Amino acid sequence: MSDAVKVGLLGLGVVGGGVARTLRDKADTIARRVGQPVTLGGVLVRDPSRQRDVEGVQVTTDPAAVLDDPDVQIVVEMMGGEDPAHQYIRRAIENGKHVVTANKEVMAKHGPSIVAAAASKGLDVAYEASVGGGIPVIGPFKLDLLANDISRVTAIINGTTNYIITRMSTAGLDFGTALSEAQAAGYAEPDPRNDIEGIDAAYKLSILSTLAFHARVHPDQVYHEGITRLEPSDFRYAAELGYAIKLLAIGKLVDGGLEARVHPTMVPAGTMLASVDDVYNAVQVEGDLVGRILFYGRGAGAGPTASAVVADVIDLAQRIVGGEVRPTVAVYDESIRPRPMADVESRYYIRLVAADRPGVIARIASLFGERQISLSSVIQKEDVREVDGERIAEIVFTTHLARESAVQEALREIGELDVVERVGSLIRVED
Amino acid sequence: MSDAVKVGLLGLGVVGGGVARTLRDKADTIARRVGQPVTLGGVLVRDPSRQRDVEGVQVTTDPAAVLDDPDVQIVVEMMGGEDPAHQYIRRAIENGKHVVTANKEVMAKHGPSIVAAAASKGLDVAYEASVGGGIPVIGPFKLDLLANDISRVTAIINGTTNYIITRMSTAGLDFGTALSEAQAAGYAEPDPRNDIEGIDAAYKLSILSTLAFHARVHPDQVYHEGITRLEPSDFRYAAELGYAIKLLAIGKLVDGGLEARVHPTMVPAGTMLASVDDVYNAVQVEGDLVGRILFYGRGAGAGPTASAVVADVIDLAQRIVGGEVRPTVAVYDESIRPRPMADVESRYYIRLVAADRPGVIARIASLFGERQISLSSVIQKEDVREVDGERIAEIVFTTHLARESAVQEALREIGELDVVERVGSLIRVED
Repeated sequence: MSDAVKVGLLGLGVVGGGVARTLRDKADTIARRVGQPVTLGGVLVRDPSRQRDVEGVQVTTDPAAVLDDPDVQIVVEMMGGEDPAHQYIRRAIENGKHVVTANKEVMAKHGPSIVAAAASKGLDVAYEASVGGGIPVIGPFKLDLLANDISRVTAIINGTTNYIITRMSTAGLDFGTALSEAQAAGYAEPDPRNDIEGIDAAYKLSILSTLAFHARVHPDQVYHEGITRLEPSDFRYAAELGYAIKLLAIGKLVDGGLEARVHPTMVPAGTMLASVDDVYNAVQVEGDLVGRILFYGRGAGAGPTASAVVADVIDLAQRIVGGEVRPTVAVYDESIRPRPMADVESRYYIRLVAADRPGVIARIASLFGERQISLSSVIQKEDVREVDGERIAEIVFTTHLARESAVQEALREIGELDVVERVGSLIRVED
Repeated sequence: MSDAVKVGLLGLGVVGGGVARTLRDKADTIARRVGQPVTLGGVLVRDPSRQRDVEGVQVTTDPAAVLDDPDVQIVVEMMGGEDPAHQYIRRAIENGKHVVTANKEVMAKHGPSIVAAAASKGLDVAYEASVGGGIPVIGPFKLDLLANDISRVTAIINGTTNYIITRMSTAGLDFGTALSEAQAAGYAEPDPRNDIEGIDAAYKLSILSTLAFHARVHPDQVYHEGITRLEPSDFRYAAELGYAIKLLAIGKLVDGGLEARVHPTMVPAGTMLASVDDVYNAVQVEGDLVGRILFYGRGAGAGPTASAVVADVIDLAQRIVGGEVRPTVAVYDESIRPRPMADVESRYYIRLVAADRPGVIARIASLFGERQISLSSVIQKEDVREVDGERIAEIVFTTHLARESAVQEALREIGELDVVERVGSLIRVED
């Protein structure tokens, strides 16, 4: 047992810098909780000349200075992106180091194999910060919920899109304006694709589903659909129907098959999930014993990420000092199969832009009827606009439980009707 | 190392029965997660002749059959109440057994000393179920939030009162009717005093504060005020002012002093806490790194309690099988002192029943003014009723930040005014 636990850090950007500052500013508290000091060794950066507001750390551009340093016991990876982060994590494990990472892409794509590689060498990989920032979500699955069979996870796990959606909903903004506002506020990247297309949420859902259902869920198996097609009128209709629109990540066991999907969803107004606004995240879990529980907080940022990463470092350091780390051994239920999106059953909200002519609703409704899709409500307002001499109206349908494939086929046929200008939106409705 | 981890159970009521059933029904899952079977040994009951829906358990009325059984490694205490539960927990520890308990009264009054006694013998005491039922709250404080300095805990931790308050708010019921409804639904005891007077919530706040602030907080140091004086009109005024009323348990560090108080509180409508209805609980925590996070779920019942208790059993059993339990060693910050209620600063809502005569509002307002209490709003409605020939009206004042002692003194003087029939309500207002 050494006199201090030495941590190597990969990346000193906004979140990496937050970790470095926390390890320095809270060194006394951390030492008290661990029983020994936790010191920061080498820090890998891309550009050593860049000015940083973390003084006194020893930066290097040579990965070996961190990854091959025999004194480093824990490598904290805060670079983001798949490569070279993935290679560096592998190399750290090969060199006998425990790993703490906030990297959702690497953990979603390679988590089970990384955790197994580490466990085979008596090492652990901690990744609480990869989902939900500082909100404890990985910990509860590994400990507090262990006695439960989980049937559903429903999460708002992308702060950027939740901010955009909140602004569209409360201020009536269109998507483009809300996105620009999010970018100006620093909540959205200059290239926002990963967030607004639901890719980031799909990575996180893959990690959550793997934990919740003890099933390997690769991000390729997660259906994802972004928020770019939402229009202000969808938010008005949602409010009128008693719903809020959220980009939900849903993992759900149905007849032994696992649905994993990310898409805009209408959730009943007044529920906890509907109350999650701005950049906040929430993860709702349903277990056979515990019923419905929910975790809420900020899903990103230097502080929340450092909260999770440093907690993982403290936990690992306590176990290192205690003399035995006892790594997580994940056991997967190989009988659980992914359930294709076409088989999903949901209720639906469908907004069509169609000609304001006699018989239009009847023609559309009959196409739903032919596929056994039962309508629960139809809204057509009197506000009609004229396009090329044709009077155009918005018609909103909501359905009872229906099968995704049937709804998609019906919509294809409806879209081809000469009286239908376009299918404006399809939003799934969940309790 | 034995071939199975043997658990002794004290109490086989609703929640104890839930634990017994879960250990039996999920034996395979538990064995897989622990690496060895976890078996239920003796079960202490008061009345062995009572019919139970837990078959095949070996009941006894002799505490020694459980507490002195050398094969029992974990004692699960599910009796509730201070004694004899407290004595049995002590005896279990003396006999070298780990303890899992859902007992908030024992943990609030004796937790730090029990945990220390256990640690000195290399034993651990787990009590996740003592606060918030199946919601992971103790676990996060012990692990995920370790890097944070916590400044405030704000919790709805009594399901009975939250149910009553929800019914008063949504259905306009008076307190007595809502209480009867809660009793009929099985959400309130025949003797509901511990719940409706805020005593149960004070126990739980004592446990939460001890964990969050690393300070020993005895329930005697927790100010508590129940919900019995709330009237339907308070809920109408709250809605009008943009608030919901909740029985909040608040732990808060102010200038190195610790406020710990349970009382009805107005919280802004639309916030997460305001959305916690019915028997649900929520614990909101504010940390320097993580910001504001919240945990939500069912705070009581056989399922949620078993979820937390069996998770604690699995965790302890894993550590027993791993060969080393490494008990929790709590380190307390002895510099933190309780802050008396008189020193608390809050905003206030005050409802007075007064004569509808000229100059009444001015006389009352001047008594507030003399004590530097600044009013933020005054509401007097036109609905006036006649009592003994005097026209009586309700007047509602809200204040800016004021000191509790000043408000109490002002209210004493106001209550003595001949034009004031009574002080209807005083409700603190928090963000």
